[in-house]
Amino acid sequence: MDEFSFIEKYLVPLAAGFPGSLNLTDDAAVIDIPPGKELVITKDAISAGVHFIGNESPDLIARKLLRVNLSDLAAKGAVPLCYFIAACLPERTNEEWVAAFTKGLALEQKTYGTHLAGGDTCKSKGPLSLSLTALGLVDKGTMLKRSGAKPDDDIYVSGTLGEAALGLALLQKKIHLESAEAIKRYQLPEPRLALGQALVGVATSCMDVSDGLMQDLGHICRASNVGADIERTLLPLPQGKHDWQALISGGDDYELLFTAPQSNRAAIKTLSQKLSLPLNRIGSITAGNSVRLLNESAEDIPLAVKGWRHF
Amino acid sequence: MDEFSFIEKYLVPLAAGFPGSLNLTDDAAVIDIPPGKELVITKDAISAGVHFIGNESPDLIARKLLRVNLSDLAAKGAVPLCYFIAACLPERTNEEWVAAFTKGLALEQKTYGTHLAGGDTCKSKGPLSLSLTALGLVDKGTMLKRSGAKPDDDIYVSGTLGEAALGLALLQKKIHLESAEAIKRYQLPEPRLALGQALVGVATSCMDVSDGLMQDLGHICRASNVGADIERTLLPLPQGKHDWQALISGGDDYELLFTAPQSNRAAIKTLSQKLSLPLNRIGSITAGNSVRLLNESAEDIPLAVKGWRHF
Repeated sequence: MDEFSFIEKYLVPLAAGFPGSLNLTDDAAVIDIPPGKELVITKDAISAGVHFIGNESPDLIARKLLRVNLSDLAAKGAVPLCYFIAACLPERTNEEWVAAFTKGLALEQKTYGTHLAGGDTCKSKGPLSLSLTALGLVDKGTMLKRSGAKPDDDIYVSGTLGEAALGLALLQKKIHLESAEAIKRYQLPEPRLALGQALVGVATSCMDVSDGLMQDLGHICRASNVGADIERTLLPLPQGKHDWQALISGGDDYELLFTAPQSNRAAIKTLSQKLSLPLNRIGSITAGNSVRLLNESAEDIPLAVKGWRHF
Repeated sequence: MDEFSFIEKYLVPLAAGFPGSLNLTDDAAVIDIPPGKELVITKDAISAGVHFIGNESPDLIARKLLRVNLSDLAAKGAVPLCYFIAACLPERTNEEWVAAFTKGLALEQKTYGTHLAGGDTCKSKGPLSLSLTALGLVDKGTMLKRSGAKPDDDIYVSGTLGEAALGLALLQKKIHLESAEAIKRYQLPEPRLALGQALVGVATSCMDVSDGLMQDLGHICRASNVGADIERTLLPLPQGKHDWQALISGGDDYELLFTAPQSNRAAIKTLSQKLSLPLNRIGSITAGNSVRLLNESAEDIPLAVKGWRHF
């Protein structure tokens, strides 16, 4: 299978329905942004042996790659528009692999309403290396940022924390437990797009939890020039006797972490019911600059590891 | 050096001056497209051992990565706006390497008027793998495409062809010759931005020659549903006794290949003088669908290899 047959057979169908892609027949895509909208862009790269174990089925790798980027758009309140992919493929890559990988992309495109608009494929002398650039739209001036948190704001997190870390530990056989749900949470995180879009005008700051709760909260606090107190007992952690510190710092949650004024509590409760998604209040923004995790007696719990470092 | 110090010290300075980057403190960039403009986006990936030899200095790798993407914008007549970079770095990567790599990016940003707006860094279990997404702007509806060539249009190429292939052969010690210029052409191609922008309204189709003249011309012909006759004697090839077939199919030229009606010959001659850049007429678009290279007797020259295949 040569490069051009590959593009024609597997990539062009993913671009159908998005005119700006020019059906992948040109050097670049051309995108007309509707009046009143702003473009939100994020780019994530993943590499075999680092971000995924390497023996996953290709469709799972494709789906996770797209989902982690859509999670960034979700955290900004954006509606997905299109994406670009760069794939450096090991020389042993066969057509079966490519077919499964692009099938995974096709499935996610349909679920989340986005399209392939361009990209690049190349050979790799090492492991599979992928990067994806995702584009979304927001109404001008409404993008949810990390920088809007105010003292006394409530701090919320969607869904549950730590299940993906549990899933990874299961896959790595570090713990023994039956939990298809935890493995799914690690392999196929759910980008909280409907939530993010609904938080525009409600939340004062937002980001997705991808590298561990306390570390990511630190980013919001630094960007907003505030501190935070999190109550350990309010954290939505998995049932069972687990190392909860490892779970909240394990990363890969892809839940939304956001702040909102106390006056929005009723609105957020209604939103949680509407989306059938838990939105747990886990603490408060403070006027200081310390980001603390407190036990039942309001004492600081020191954490051995705050989160995932990319290197 | 941890991830956050790395971003703060080496990447944030590259984002200064581009408000949409939010100084790299958020999950995504937010870009307001001026009224009347359209966004042009291109994404290229490069991998050590495939697109570069691997022993180049890091600043050269950075500069070529940015330039090959800017070349795509040039071919579309776009003005560079900003870019996103994903870098999967081998574990042995040290701070000295990063300092030199980002210094290379800083130099090119200044030369070509673009800014870093976001991206991702990660570890690689294999060789260095890089991808870049470049954004540019055009007036709405004016992007130069591959699909506008018409029968009887002239075919032009800027600058010279084959010097980069000669440079690569020199670096690989396949040939012995002193030519710093050829090596520079391979390592630091010149994105023809001023030319591309000036060709809006003048050229009927345009692309950059990155994978070999005849193969790339084939893309224009397929997209435009036309054929082409190229005259061997009109090709701007390097002086000397070289394997000219290898040179025109070697790739990495990053010159602009474009078509224009014969009525624009005077305008193109003036443009060539204004830019001090040769714009050689090398053939004509035909009504058929064959893409031919002709000798002095107007006979078809069969080519052993038409161009570079990415895999």
